[in-house]
Order: sequence, then structure tokens, then C-alpha cells
Amino acid sequence: MPKISNKGQQMPESPIRKLVPYAEAAAAKGKIIYQLNIGQPDIKTPEVALNAVKNHDIEVLSYSHSAGFESYREKLASYYKNTSLPIEKQDIIITTGGSEALLFTMGSITDQGDEVIIPEPFYANYNGFATASGVTIKPIQSKIEDGFALPPISEFEKLITEKTKAILICNPGNPTGYLYTKEEIQQLADLALKHDLFIVSDEVYREFAYDGVKHHSIMSIPELANHAIMVDSVSKRYSMCGARIGCLVSKNTEVITTAMKFAQARLSPPTFAQIASEAALDTPQSYFDEVIEQYTFRRDLLVKGLEKIDGVKVANPKGAFYCIAELPIDNADDFAKWLLEDFEDDNETIMVAPAAGFYSTPNTGLNQVRIAYVLKKENLERALVILEKALKQYNNKA
Amino acid sequence: MPKISNKGQQMPESPIRKLVPYAEAAAAKGKIIYQLNIGQPDIKTPEVALNAVKNHDIEVLSYSHSAGFESYREKLASYYKNTSLPIEKQDIIITTGGSEALLFTMGSITDQGDEVIIPEPFYANYNGFATASGVTIKPIQSKIEDGFALPPISEFEKLITEKTKAILICNPGNPTGYLYTKEEIQQLADLALKHDLFIVSDEVYREFAYDGVKHHSIMSIPELANHAIMVDSVSKRYSMCGARIGCLVSKNTEVITTAMKFAQARLSPPTFAQIASEAALDTPQSYFDEVIEQYTFRRDLLVKGLEKIDGVKVANPKGAFYCIAELPIDNADDFAKWLLEDFEDDNETIMVAPAAGFYSTPNTGLNQVRIAYVLKKENLERALVILEKALKQYNNKA
Ligand SMILES: Cc1ncc(COP(=O)(O)O)c(C=O)c1O
Ligand SMILES: Cc1ncc(COP(=O)(O)O)c(C=O)c1O
Repeated sequence: MPKISNKGQQMPESPIRKLVPYAEAAAAKGKIIYQLNIGQPDIKTPEVALNAVKNHDIEVLSYSHSAGFESYREKLASYYKNTSLPIEKQDIIITTGGSEALLFTMGSITDQGDEVIIPEPFYANYNGFATASGVTIKPIQSKIEDGFALPPISEFEKLITEKTKAILICNPGNPTGYLYTKEEIQQLADLALKHDLFIVSDEVYREFAYDGVKHHSIMSIPELANHAIMVDSVSKRYSMCGARIGCLVSKNTEVITTAMKFAQARLSPPTFAQIASEAALDTPQSYFDEVIEQYTFRRDLLVKGLEKIDGVKVANPKGAFYCIAELPIDNADDFAKWLLEDFEDDNETIMVAPAAGFYSTPNTGLNQVRIAYVLKKENLERALVILEKALKQYNNKA
Repeated sequence: MPKISNKGQQMPESPIRKLVPYAEAAAAKGKIIYQLNIGQPDIKTPEVALNAVKNHDIEVLSYSHSAGFESYREKLASYYKNTSLPIEKQDIIITTGGSEALLFTMGSITDQGDEVIIPEPFYANYNGFATASGVTIKPIQSKIEDGFALPPISEFEKLITEKTKAILICNPGNPTGYLYTKEEIQQLADLALKHDLFIVSDEVYREFAYDGVKHHSIMSIPELANHAIMVDSVSKRYSMCGARIGCLVSKNTEVITTAMKFAQARLSPPTFAQIASEAALDTPQSYFDEVIEQYTFRRDLLVKGLEKIDGVKVANPKGAFYCIAELPIDNADDFAKWLLEDFEDDNETIMVAPAAGFYSTPNTGLNQVRIAYVLKKENLERALVILEKALKQYNNKA
């Protein structure tokens, strides 16, 4: 039998998927599971987007431009300009999700053996894109005690070598919910300029900033024009994860020209999804206001609830819709499995994402979990009750 | 300014795109261009597929399963079973176009520096996927004199090294239109088994077989279960290129498990497009009968027309909707540019794809062009007239 590739063997499995068989077994037994583990919003997709697809008048569903509809890129550029970012149509390549934008970015700026520095914990699929591209991730730990703020720049400098091509940040962060300050973004920019590195900023949660705090995009720093690459997506912004539309944005024409070669090889992004995404740009501000209000409410409910549970520590997130909680346990992997296999309260349980999968450094974050607050009030409240009871029972069983 | 990757620099530009600026300039001057250069069918997409999308009742457009809708995979397996291929739901991963299936295949079976043998001329984007994956393509020339039949197996054996991981074929072929015989497929299977190689068969044109000749899928050979990987797509079958839905099919569970890790990293294929593709499986047979009749008619018109032109040689294609023609010129690149820039007949011209871009061996196929017969009768006829006049004028100008 012919062998699969080393790369394929090394491709990490998503840390969230690992629990799925246990969840399926529990569900098969009729157990109700509150899913705190996934970043799939329950918020309704804007009607303007869904209706645009319903009203399509396509007769021949042909390839679109490899960079995406011109009309969409134009409107998207205006959208960014409205948030004071100097982005033009020609700086944008529409991709199949932010995922593909990350893959094109890796392909365009890294070769086999190159290094990318990423503050950890980070979005677990960065590991997959790095492995697929032959890139080594150099993690820098951010700490729950600091609310997962940017680690000191001196720590980055220690890791920079000949092979370092880029620093990748996620702002606001998945899984941390951390929103970088203007100063932190400026520090990263100075560092990138000093060492001539790319800064890749994954801003797929850019609209999700709470407490009136402003989001600071990597694209807001004019001196960084040739060094900044932004990754964005409609998945979370419009609760349109299934569309599979994102974009790669850069003022560096060499980056755009190169990424376009990857885009041309795969022909075009999906047409129906582009129709939905272009229409979504007409979503009224009231939609976002409600969404932000909803998430702020949920976050407050969750964080206050977690803080009340004995031995639980939590970093209050300023953005996105996740938080990392430290639990009074040794191993969140075991605990998460136990929750699904052995625990029930009134035949109900919860599913959480063990945080170790978001760290690149081995044996880190073992007692942490990521909790997504994409459930409605009553369910979040119930999930908190279940967590509290479960922790008590888990710690008494030994 | 930070440097882009070597890989990015090496990524080939699509040979078809290179002519686009010339075409745009010509169009801007009001010249009418008959496009013989692209594989975008003009055939209407089945209404059942378009209507399914119009009638969607989605409220939250969420991620789907990373392998695609279970219902779609099930129906697709039945579809293959109807063509006598023993394919089950679990052998299928739904991808974002056949393009992504090719990329997942490369990632799953090759590492940096590995080699894949491909009969040339071949679909030019194989170069892009190979470069993106760090893979070296080893071409074997198939000849217009033989109608682009499979080169002798001894030629393949000469190229097989420690690094050879797979043989990639396209059946029926783009750009050749060649349809492999049962014997040729069996020969390839024997070779793969002897040397323990994967056979990747790109069958995105599998429905387009003419003159009553049967298509022989790589999946039809039971002994090859662990060695065969099929790439398929809805793009051409249903004239649904903009959907961006394809699939990777294999009975080798290690291949499927590995490809799934790549699939999970990018989350899911596009939802609206899956709705359309699943519905498209209900397309009535009459649709295909008409399409095959239409393409057969066009092929006959084109091939007979080409054969009548002085000095033109053409291989009669048995499948897909392309043919390669040898022209009485030295350099098809120059000729193709000249057609757009300098030639006009009644303010009309044609656009062809120089075939050199489909060969991996340098300076090969320089006097060949690929012609796609995706235009309707009158336009094809007019294009033939233009080609004949243009060749005369081109050869007299020197
Ligand atoms: C931080 C981050 N980046 C990128 C993505 C990819 O999203 P998509 O491909 O749906 O745009 C996600 C999805 O969860 C994410 O959390
Ligand atoms: C031979 C071949 N393979 C694969 C593809 C990719 O098609 P898609 O990604 O649209 O399925 C094409 C498109 O032209 C092709 O001609």
C-alpha cells in the first residue's frame, strides 16, 4: 500500500473534533449537551444577504474573477474606508473563507522550514495551515494573569532568526477574546519594521469589540503598508460561516500579485456566497448594535458566573465571543471527556474545548478550557450551573 | 520590504491569463473576440439546482460538516453506484471545487521534493498545485500523432524513482480531449501496483464521452482500491463552475483520514453550493443527452473545419470539450497575441490558448493551440473563418 505523506501524518487534528465521538455517544444515549465548545454563532444571518441569494437570476453559474466580483471588492473597500482604513479595491483578494486567506498568505510569504511567531494560545487551525505549508510556528506565551495581553516585545526579539518571516496575531483573539491596544499594535509595527517582517493580522472578529473599546487594525498604520497583511471573513461578522467568504488585504503589491497566483490556480471563490456577502454589506447598523448588545450581555453573564465558581479563574474578554477559563482540575482533556461520558445533571451536560489544543508549547494550558458564548441566556445560565456541579463531583470522585 | 517566498515567485501564472491584458485592450477598442480559449461552458445550469438555491430556507448560515453534507455524500455515492462504481458515502470528501480535491490529494500523498508523473500536455493548474505543495512534476509526452493516447508504460518506468509518489492522469483529458481505453487504464493500474504508487485520476469531464465510447474510471478496478484517488467536480457536469463544489474519492481509508485533516483545517465547503449540487443530482437524463448531442455536434463542426484549413493538424477528441490543433506557425504565443493586437476581420477576432503552457517540458507544443468548443454553432463557424483568414495573413506578412 503506498504511503501517505509525512506532512499528512503531521497534520494536526482539530482539538475540538477530538471530543466529537464522545459527544455523539452521549447524544445517542439521549443526553442533552450544551455546546460551549464551538465558535458557530446562533445569531441570525442578515435577511438582506439571504434574500439576495433567494432572488438570484443566474442561468449559467460561471467562474467569477479569481479575486472575486469586482463590484464586491469595490463595496468592501468602501466599507473599510468607513472604518477609516485606507483600503482600495486592488488591495483585496476575495477568498474561500478567512481560512483560504491564511493559506494564501502562508504560501505567499513562507517556504519550507520558515518560521512564523504567534502569541499563544492561538486559533488551532493555524497549526494545520502551517503544517500544510511546511512552516514552523514559534509560540510566545501570553498569560491568563495579564488577560492574554501582548507579551513583551523583548520576548519576540529573542525568537527572531534568519528564518522568521512573519508575526501572526489574531485581533480580537480566538480563543482569548483579547483586543490589542493601539500601543500594542504600534509596538508590533515597530518590531516588524525594525526586522523587516510581515505582520499578519487575523481580524475575522474585528466587529466584536465590547465596552466601547475601539478595534485597532493592522491596516491603520501607514508606515506598515508593505509589511501588513490582514485576513478577514464574513463568517462571524454576519453569522455567515457556511458562505465561505473571506479576504486577504494588503497594500504590498508584491504580496497581492503573488497571492493572486494561488487564487488563479483554484479559479474562483464561490459565486452564491459572493452574492450573499456583497448584499450583506447593506446590513443596517441596528443589526450590529443588537448583536454587540447581545454578546456583551452574554459575556457579562458568563464571566460573572464563572468568577462565582470556586477555584475558577477567567480573563474578561474585550472582543470576539470566547473566553479562556482556568479550572480547579489537572487535565481539561480528561475533564471534558468525563463531562460527556460520565457526568449528567438531570440528563444534561456541557461540552467545552480543552485549551491545550490552542497552545503550541507542549503541556501548557492543561487546566484551561475555551468557552464560546454563542448560546442564549437560559442555556448559558444552565451551562454554568452544570459546570459548577460537575466540578464539585469531579473533584470529589478521586 | 520583506521578501515574498521562493514558492510564491515560482508559482506559475495561468497560461490563459497571460493573454487577458491583450484581450482587454482589444475589447476596449471595440473589437469582437470569439473566445476559444476558456473552458467555461455556455450551457445552462440545470434549473433544479438553481431553484434549490432560490428556495433555501436558511436562517443561520452555519458551517457544514467538513466532509460536506451527509445527505449529499449519500446521494453522490448512489450516483456513482449507478455508473457501476462501488463508492460509498465514507469514501467521499466534498471539496471546494475539483481544485481543492487536487490540493488535498497533493498534501495527503506528497512531501517537499516528491515527484508526480503526468502525461503532458496537461491541465495547467497542476503546475500551481504542485508548486504550492513543493512537488516536482515529471512529464511524459503524449503525441498529437497518436491522438494523445497513453505513452508506452516503458516511458513511465524510466521516470520512476524513490521519490515518485503518484501518477496523475486526466480522463477525459483537458487539453487533449483524449479518453483512455479500458486497456490503458488497466496498464496504469498494473504499473501502480507493481511500483506501489498512487494513481490520481482527474475525472471532472467524466460525463463528456462521445461517439458512444464508454468512460473508464480509475475507481472501476477493484485491485486498485488502496491506490486509486479520483477527483471529480460539478463544474463541468452541470455547467456549475461558479458553485465551487468537487470531491475527492478513495477507498483507501488512510487517504481519506489524512485528507479530512486538511478539510477540517479549512472548516467546510460552501453551503449554498452544496444545496445546488445535491439538487443537481436530480437533473433528468434528457439534460445530459442534449448536452452530449450539442458537444458532439460542435466537436464535429470544429474538427472538420480545422482539418479543412491548410497546414492545420488536429487530434479528434473523444471526450471533454477541448482539442489541440497544430498550426502552420512557429510560435503560438506570438500568434495568439497578434490575433488580439493586430488582426481583425470585419472588426472581429478570436482568442486561443497557446498549448505550450500545457506542456511541462520547455519549448514543446510551440506551434499548438488549445481550442475549447464551448461556443454555439454560428460563433464556432465564424471563428473558423477568422482562423483561416488570420493564418493566411500571418504567414504572408513575413
Ligand atoms: C481566528 C479565526 N481565524 C479564521 C477563522 C476561519 O474562519 P472562516 O474560514 O470561516 O472565515 C476562524 C474561524 O473560526 C477563526 O476563529
Ligand atoms: C482537468 C481539470 N481539472 C480540474 C479542474 C478544476 O475545476 P473545478 O475546481 O472548477 O472543479 C478543471 C477546470 O477547468 C479542469 O479542467
